[in-house]
Amino acid sequence: MAPEKSKILIIGGTGYIGQFVVEASAKAGHPTSVLVRESTAADPLKGKLIDKFKNSGVTLVFGDLYDHQSLVNEIKQADVVISTVGKMQIPDQTKIIAAIKEAGNIKRFLPSEFGIDVDHQNAIEPASSMFAEKVQIRRAIEAERIPFTYIACNCFSGYFLSTLAQPGAAAVPPRDKVTIHGDGTPKGTNEFMHHSLLEIFHLDFVFVAVFNEEHDIGTYTIKAVDDPRTLNKILYIKPPENICSLNELVSLWEKKIGKSLERSYVPEEQLLKLIQESPFPMNVALAVSHSIFLKGDVTNFEIEPRFGVEASETYPDVKYTCVDEYLDRFV
Amino acid sequence: MAPEKSKILIIGGTGYIGQFVVEASAKAGHPTSVLVRESTAADPLKGKLIDKFKNSGVTLVFGDLYDHQSLVNEIKQADVVISTVGKMQIPDQTKIIAAIKEAGNIKRFLPSEFGIDVDHQNAIEPASSMFAEKVQIRRAIEAERIPFTYIACNCFSGYFLSTLAQPGAAAVPPRDKVTIHGDGTPKGTNEFMHHSLLEIFHLDFVFVAVFNEEHDIGTYTIKAVDDPRTLNKILYIKPPENICSLNELVSLWEKKIGKSLERSYVPEEQLLKLIQESPFPMNVALAVSHSIFLKGDVTNFEIEPRFGVEASETYPDVKYTCVDEYLDRFV
Repeated sequence: MAPEKSKILIIGGTGYIGQFVVEASAKAGHPTSVLVRESTAADPLKGKLIDKFKNSGVTLVFGDLYDHQSLVNEIKQADVVISTVGKMQIPDQTKIIAAIKEAGNIKRFLPSEFGIDVDHQNAIEPASSMFAEKVQIRRAIEAERIPFTYIACNCFSGYFLSTLAQPGAAAVPPRDKVTIHGDGTPKGTNEFMHHSLLEIFHLDFVFVAVFNEEHDIGTYTIKAVDDPRTLNKILYIKPPENICSLNELVSLWEKKIGKSLERSYVPEEQLLKLIQESPFPMNVALAVSHSIFLKGDVTNFEIEPRFGVEASETYPDVKYTCVDEYLDRFV
Repeated sequence: MAPEKSKILIIGGTGYIGQFVVEASAKAGHPTSVLVRESTAADPLKGKLIDKFKNSGVTLVFGDLYDHQSLVNEIKQADVVISTVGKMQIPDQTKIIAAIKEAGNIKRFLPSEFGIDVDHQNAIEPASSMFAEKVQIRRAIEAERIPFTYIACNCFSGYFLSTLAQPGAAAVPPRDKVTIHGDGTPKGTNEFMHHSLLEIFHLDFVFVAVFNEEHDIGTYTIKAVDDPRTLNKILYIKPPENICSLNELVSLWEKKIGKSLERSYVPEEQLLKLIQESPFPMNVALAVSHSIFLKGDVTNFEIEPRFGVEASETYPDVKYTCVDEYLDRFV
């Protein structure tokens, strides 16, 4: 007999990544509840999503982060809490921690992460302050000895691939010109030899990134919740076929559309200046890009068993969408 | 004999808008101090700016927001405190409020605003949460009865004009294609008649914005600090020549470069969907654009004497840079 699936409460389920986590949870057969504010449920913009939740058997629970007692009550009904709250609510997850502590029954808490591993990064401001908020939440969870998993899903395909990492609005890759932060080329920055090469050639900022499709991020997240291998660990989503540099990404796209793009390279010095000279939120977008592509914060360290596991290795049965397939959507 | 100029302490002076406020303060002859963290002073990226401050007679004071006693001591040396801290530190301005309260000598406090008037806006999430942080700081200042001025400087030219309001990275206006949020046309949305026209033609989202040059923002800010007319008021920077719609902006640019741009319009429904489907920070950039260009949050209300004054009217001696001149820089 298969073990019973844990009951999952998702907070922030109508957000960018939350909706994919909710979908994956319901699909995997977990009794799934989503905490929503009544105002969100009544928002016409969220109507389609709310209907989709209902049709997939998801339970809507009215409440919010700031109502301690009702939060405790809802948490008591669940086994696992997943937070996918947006950037503005990251610090307020202390409210969830307090409620989990009081409820006392939660077997696993996944705070809102869904980016790079904030304990392994060398970001500059203002990205570093943003990452520090997630670090503080991690330390608060650990201090309360709440069982956790942190999902380091790296780059969202829906954001980075649909724009070829151009911090802009159009959700289709460019067909004429492309701007590349840094030099954009080599691969395999985990190897020591490579680091020396970088030093010899003064190519300081040539790191690869990892681009993951949002449904896959949802699927891997839900796989992790009942898994003892991810208990008190970071789940890194770094499937081998999704690791590539910006130049490789652009080349792949050029091949698909049968056309070369004009590539402009932004040296680190110029990017740093641009970050200083851009107001919020563009400075954050650029500083995140600097962290990923010029500091290599996604790929410049080894995942060690004491703190993490890799998702595609841990769950080889998941057929993930690779970068190559993803780009086909836009041809 | 001219009255003595008040002593100004600026917190966040090395940031995007802070540097212009510092420059204007020194230029106007105010004894000017800038609170900087030692790490900021040692940052090579800030070296040039720090040197510029020193050369213009600005005093660097080492310290930070989170060291209450040293903050109180520094505040005791000043008459006026101006905060230009970045987005990530907005909520932490409660530390400045507490220190001003304890010091007891401050004649005027200008918290970090430098955007739209957050008490007159209809923004949607996630912009609304961001604006709410500034609202909370306003209410905390008022509750403590600290004399204040709020600077509503509307859109930074360096961000909005250099890109023609394209939420992207390149700091030069596009020469081929341009994307306009909303329909982009009419002007003069303060008139009632116009509102009716909007309703008749179902043009819901056609507001003008105000684009101000950063040096001018600094100049007007410093003009306000000793002025009884701005005491406990909002200073709106809305010079008549800087008010225009996106379509007017694009037409002006087209005339300058002698070339037509391909204009794509993004209807409100599509923009709302894009906001929902974009991760942080692009969702914030788009929601701010929605607030400005589709809700008209910069121009859809009258400035009433009980809560505010307009800068170019109040200080007619300031020769501000108008939008037309600003765009000449890029031709």
